[in-house]
Amino acid sequence: MKINQHYLQLEKSYLFTMIGKKVAQFQQQHPEVDIIRLGIGDVTLPLCPAVVEALESASREMGVKETFHGYGPEQGYDFLKEKIAGYYAEKGVTLALDEIFISDGAKSDLGNILDLFDADNTVLIPDPVYPVYVDTNIMAGRKVVFADADASNGFLPLPDENTDADIIYICSPNNPTGAVYDHAGLKAWVDYAKKRDAVILFDAAYESFVADPSLPRSIYEVEGAKEVAIEFCSFSKTAGFTGTRCGYTIVPDALVRGGVALNGLWLRRQTTKFNGVPYIIQKGAAAVFSEEGRRQTLANIDYYRENARILADTLDRLGIRYTGGKNSPYIWMECPNGMKSWEFFDYLLENAGVVGTPGAGFGANGEGYFRLTAFNDHENTEKAAKRIEKLLSK
Amino acid sequence: MKINQHYLQLEKSYLFTMIGKKVAQFQQQHPEVDIIRLGIGDVTLPLCPAVVEALESASREMGVKETFHGYGPEQGYDFLKEKIAGYYAEKGVTLALDEIFISDGAKSDLGNILDLFDADNTVLIPDPVYPVYVDTNIMAGRKVVFADADASNGFLPLPDENTDADIIYICSPNNPTGAVYDHAGLKAWVDYAKKRDAVILFDAAYESFVADPSLPRSIYEVEGAKEVAIEFCSFSKTAGFTGTRCGYTIVPDALVRGGVALNGLWLRRQTTKFNGVPYIIQKGAAAVFSEEGRRQTLANIDYYRENARILADTLDRLGIRYTGGKNSPYIWMECPNGMKSWEFFDYLLENAGVVGTPGAGFGANGEGYFRLTAFNDHENTEKAAKRIEKLLSK
Repeated sequence: MKINQHYLQLEKSYLFTMIGKKVAQFQQQHPEVDIIRLGIGDVTLPLCPAVVEALESASREMGVKETFHGYGPEQGYDFLKEKIAGYYAEKGVTLALDEIFISDGAKSDLGNILDLFDADNTVLIPDPVYPVYVDTNIMAGRKVVFADADASNGFLPLPDENTDADIIYICSPNNPTGAVYDHAGLKAWVDYAKKRDAVILFDAAYESFVADPSLPRSIYEVEGAKEVAIEFCSFSKTAGFTGTRCGYTIVPDALVRGGVALNGLWLRRQTTKFNGVPYIIQKGAAAVFSEEGRRQTLANIDYYRENARILADTLDRLGIRYTGGKNSPYIWMECPNGMKSWEFFDYLLENAGVVGTPGAGFGANGEGYFRLTAFNDHENTEKAAKRIEKLLSK
Repeated sequence: MKINQHYLQLEKSYLFTMIGKKVAQFQQQHPEVDIIRLGIGDVTLPLCPAVVEALESASREMGVKETFHGYGPEQGYDFLKEKIAGYYAEKGVTLALDEIFISDGAKSDLGNILDLFDADNTVLIPDPVYPVYVDTNIMAGRKVVFADADASNGFLPLPDENTDADIIYICSPNNPTGAVYDHAGLKAWVDYAKKRDAVILFDAAYESFVADPSLPRSIYEVEGAKEVAIEFCSFSKTAGFTGTRCGYTIVPDALVRGGVALNGLWLRRQTTKFNGVPYIIQKGAAAVFSEEGRRQTLANIDYYRENARILADTLDRLGIRYTGGKNSPYIWMECPNGMKSWEFFDYLLENAGVVGTPGAGFGANGEGYFRLTAFNDHENTEKAAKRIEKLLSK
């Protein structure tokens, strides 16, 4: 039996292991320091009451013969797809129910979607980036090229007509940089993809953090995008579902390559290799769109936004350049005084007891940058902000 | 962009669509007939009280900051892995926790595991068979060969030394035939795989239906199996989780090919393309192993077993040959009077109002056979059995 040799080309990621090790070591040497973690991309607020109530009620349904649910449709229940279609309608995007696939999260589908594509395709990925885009393509032996995201383009690279690409990843609001494309930026990518018969994989996991109404929250807000883009979204950041696992993927009927509708291919993939998201969880996700659910989840997002504002204001006062913080839970800051990413990590941990994520861990262009997240308490975020301000204004 | 052309080689499965269409048509023409469905492989009893209580309680935990769970380990929580290790210990199989991966069901992992293998491997699949084994390999362009399961070998094919294979599927108790391998049968496959450096993918989804203590419920009950086999199991049939979605996959540390441990490859696959099963669902699954949960889920299995016995006894009285029914929820019967599968389907529907599944839908060797399932009420099963007996004893 021959194993998939491409797996051996994967680099081991030591980023979060290394962070954990350094923090543990520092805490051991300085047990008195109250370390504040602004490094992790995980939510901290619990599920909102409307969702918990729906989960409990669906659990009870499953215990009664008349309301029990066995195998559901692999692509998800209509009761949830209808809510999602309604959510898109608010953004001015019309979706048919068969264009919506309920998933167990954006990460799974972003990896699994690659099943539909030949190994002989060139993949264009921004740098810095969420590492999963690169790894899932290395696993299949695809050629990967990078689009430089840096200070010169505000970490929002535009298409380079000299670069050939068949599959293009866009994450907006971006992880890790927090930068958000405007309509013109996304339109440039849609046009580029159309010209090349390429497909855009649009990761919208952080869309609910967009506060500026002029910024697109779905790539389908851009004309013609349905012919070139698949969109991935998730309840993880919208409603704190990181441990509850539900998301959705949009494969428009208009997306056809080589005479084949990708919607049909994806349906075949999902009905063959997936058995749907738990009924209980889909009921919980549907409650996110109830009147109460909307109000409660928005309140949580506003809570995180306030944390981002606290951190952004601090950096503004310090005159430190950053992206994100306004329409994103992430703040991507330049390391002060020309420090390198890991150098600043140590400096901040040792002198302020604050943990962030070294930008170098997200790609070559991340060197010299640092990621802070809004996923913490107001109290801790304020404390961390004060410590950062005190340290860096010296 | 080039699509994965292998998808175009997939045959559309019309089996259950065709059944649905024929049944609907018949019901329309004969609205007075009370049709009984013994065709579907889905459970009918609700989740047991111990599981529902655990799901409700975990849902409430998720609504409180102190007990909220965000991202969990992709490979599953130890609290559930420990229960599974305990369950295997009862069968005399010792597993390390890192050999157990919690999944959202056997179907997902049976498809996704193929990521680890090169496209250039020959796959050996029994015929008749659960269609997903074939389709997932066609999607990757692998060569598929079949092992004939038929009356001559009791639908339990043994290795043929003249057949070369790198990846071998075994499902025991089998879907659709209900046949169960004994130790000697599995040992023959383990030895064959070892000699060829092949890997066995062992589907144990129906293991909890094995009542005969002399029959293996895990391939690891066979010596040396840890060096050649990956085992897939599920709470779907054990505890009625078809719509609740939880299973587990065992990749033993001893399974090494080309100097590479498959356990490490699968861990890398899962941490890159999967984000774990919902915390709530894992809590529900753990409750299956509590004292109450064990008692309640066993009672449900006994309920289905009684249905299988009713059907088997009927066929015994009619002198119709079949496999399964004793250690399986499936009964695989010879169509009477030399009828073909679809011919018997029509005959049974039109003359007894009973729906089953034509064996021909599961592969070439299924022609002339018919699958009945134990997943229904006692009342309906008894009614169906009486109608079958009346019709076929004429």
